[in-house]
Amino acid sequence: MSTNSAEKRPKPASSQFGDQIPWKKRKAELKEKQKQWKKAKIIKQLEKQKRQETADRAEQEEESQSKKGRAFTVSVALPGSVLDNAQSPELRTYLAGQIARACVVFNVDEIVVFDEQGEDVKSVEGEFKGVGKKGHACIQLARILQYMECPQYLRKWFFPVHKDLQYAGLLNPLDSPHHMRIDEESEYREGRVLNKPPKQGKGSLVNCGMRKDVRIDKQLQPDLRVTVKLSKTQNQESRLYKGVVVAPHVPRTEGGLYWGYTVRLASCLSSVFTESPFKEGYDLTVGTSERGSSVDQATLSPFKHLLVVFGGLQGLEASLDADQNLDVTDPSDLFDLYLNTCPDQGSRTIRTEEAILISMAALRQKITAAFPDDSSSS
Amino acid sequence: MSTNSAEKRPKPASSQFGDQIPWKKRKAELKEKQKQWKKAKIIKQLEKQKRQETADRAEQEEESQSKKGRAFTVSVALPGSVLDNAQSPELRTYLAGQIARACVVFNVDEIVVFDEQGEDVKSVEGEFKGVGKKGHACIQLARILQYMECPQYLRKWFFPVHKDLQYAGLLNPLDSPHHMRIDEESEYREGRVLNKPPKQGKGSLVNCGMRKDVRIDKQLQPDLRVTVKLSKTQNQESRLYKGVVVAPHVPRTEGGLYWGYTVRLASCLSSVFTESPFKEGYDLTVGTSERGSSVDQATLSPFKHLLVVFGGLQGLEASLDADQNLDVTDPSDLFDLYLNTCPDQGSRTIRTEEAILISMAALRQKITAAFPDDSSSS
Ligand SMILES: C[S@@+](CC[C@H](N)C(=O)[O-])C[C@H]1O[C@@H](n2cnc3c(N)ncnc32)[C@H](O)[C@@H]1O
Ligand SMILES: C[S@@+](CC[C@H](N)C(=O)[O-])C[C@H]1O[C@@H](n2cnc3c(N)ncnc32)[C@H](O)[C@@H]1O
Repeated sequence: MSTNSAEKRPKPASSQFGDQIPWKKRKAELKEKQKQWKKAKIIKQLEKQKRQETADRAEQEEESQSKKGRAFTVSVALPGSVLDNAQSPELRTYLAGQIARACVVFNVDEIVVFDEQGEDVKSVEGEFKGVGKKGHACIQLARILQYMECPQYLRKWFFPVHKDLQYAGLLNPLDSPHHMRIDEESEYREGRVLNKPPKQGKGSLVNCGMRKDVRIDKQLQPDLRVTVKLSKTQNQESRLYKGVVVAPHVPRTEGGLYWGYTVRLASCLSSVFTESPFKEGYDLTVGTSERGSSVDQATLSPFKHLLVVFGGLQGLEASLDADQNLDVTDPSDLFDLYLNTCPDQGSRTIRTEEAILISMAALRQKITAAFPDDSSSS
Repeated sequence: MSTNSAEKRPKPASSQFGDQIPWKKRKAELKEKQKQWKKAKIIKQLEKQKRQETADRAEQEEESQSKKGRAFTVSVALPGSVLDNAQSPELRTYLAGQIARACVVFNVDEIVVFDEQGEDVKSVEGEFKGVGKKGHACIQLARILQYMECPQYLRKWFFPVHKDLQYAGLLNPLDSPHHMRIDEESEYREGRVLNKPPKQGKGSLVNCGMRKDVRIDKQLQPDLRVTVKLSKTQNQESRLYKGVVVAPHVPRTEGGLYWGYTVRLASCLSSVFTESPFKEGYDLTVGTSERGSSVDQATLSPFKHLLVVFGGLQGLEASLDADQNLDVTDPSDLFDLYLNTCPDQGSRTIRTEEAILISMAALRQKITAAFPDDSSSS
């Protein structure tokens, strides 16, 4: 209400804290903030690059695939709203962890979190609303899934402290093959490009969670997350290991290894299909419902990119109804197969996190059967 | 240390509370204690009767089974120590709930909780050590499983307030067919014999969670839990419904319905086999392990009583080692089948609660296939 002109002048940002600021502390705080912001930016760049790389995959795949590798991919989609089914912030986190583990156990390569309500949420950034609050379920689920997928030794770099991750200590580890222990030997490793200027004509240094850093073949932007193929022969005397950067799909397509999942947000059910990172899209889609036909009679034809879609509390019918882009009302028209993966279920409802384990267990053998010549599956 | 003879006299029980006792309050407390104790006794009787009935089942089954019914049973056994894997008392409870739900989804008729460490624990009574404490995991798991199996409308009678059930509010309901809503129509219902003296020549009254009580054909002890078959025709005018008491297996063997599970404690792995409630024991036993042979190649022969056994953190090998009664060291010698139910798993370890869903999903179709003429499975 004061008209004092001095007060009208836009205050310098710092003055919002009043005058009795301990400047040293203040400066440290600002620096920390900038660091956080920088990290957020790095994540953003990282995501962009990951998207780019995923888009490039389809082409590279055909060429690079060898006998040992696995050419096909499996994607799982589910609504973020499943988190709102949990009764406490701790259980919300735990539920996200159950989903991550279920996908990893069945070698899922991509998890798509879609918005059942059709709000437009496209990234894991968004305004922070605090863990435990309803809403922002998609973003929180995506963030926890990404966090869990990241090898432990890289987490402090790529996941700044965030309230969505407040209860991350309760998560059961994924224990997937790309989460390597320090002395474990492996052809491939995930790493982070270090912020040490490489010497003229030499590649960047990468932290791969080993006792020595890795010199790669390229100069890359610091703080990028990269997949490194370590050279077969290493000079034990050297202060460094040697390796080359490869596309993230190479451990799978060439090594036949399961290499974690990517996470994608979709603003509605139709975007799950239309925004596929694979150039040709998904060539086999499965919807799941107690009203589907029995999985026992189903067979899967060979595919390149399988998508298995789960519904939330109200099932896929509800997601379909909410989606303005979709004309169909019967979900079975949307999918190649619409399957009941648990005939004669003894409970009136199966929860989504249970349905993932049950459905993937039922489909696992059918996936194997679709690739009879594949030497990587037994 | 005092040698004062007055102090040596055994104190009357009440004096342990000191002299300044508010007697009214004291009396109320004692009364409450007695009530609790009476309830505990009722539960004990109930368990005894349930055991008796279960023992009688085998004989009755053969006769009573009709086309519609399911003659075979499925039992699941797991070590109570899995609860010690949880990071908080809330998650301990939640984990027990996951196990209950996994079993219900797959129509499991009996859950056996065995003690991996071989301590002698035979009932759900035992001394109370408080929720969250390590130890007593078997008892707590059994108690939560029983609590969840009991229809909501009977719980306040059979489950006095107990610290083991402190976080029961976090449990996801089983939503099984025998958990009837008040106005739901059903041939069978679970009930509790009421404490109203029945008239000469008439049967007892039973609370089956409906708007009216049920007059049964027999006079039974108050507070017994009973399975009631409601008469097909009811006099809508009457203040009561009419029904007859049946053995707990009848909804399954005659009605083809899933009717919840019984819970049994076993003091070691061998007791799981030797103390079977079925006269002939289990005629098909399956052990589960990542070191088993692939489930994909397995077929199940027709059986009467299937038992599927899961290990804890250290697997079944550890349970076997701890069991003094067992001479075998290779678990595959103990079971008819020793199966890897998730070949090519993408995580180094599958948790027991996940393994139940995965394994039962893999076995479900094989169970169905073992009974090709069974009209109840499709
Ligand atoms: C809580 S359920 C949805 C129940 C909802 N009332 C309905 O009728 O669909 C959540 C999700 O789990 C999956 N699901 C549940 N039961 C299933 C079954 N028998 N077969 C396949 N998927 C199932 C589906 O993806 C479903 O959308
Ligand atoms: C945490 S695991 C035990 C892991 C333990 N280190 C071992 O080697 O057996 C707990 C239980 O889950 C079940 N389980 C885990 N993976 C399985 C698989 N691939 N097939 C069948 N059962 C499995 C088994 O019953 C096992 O005892």
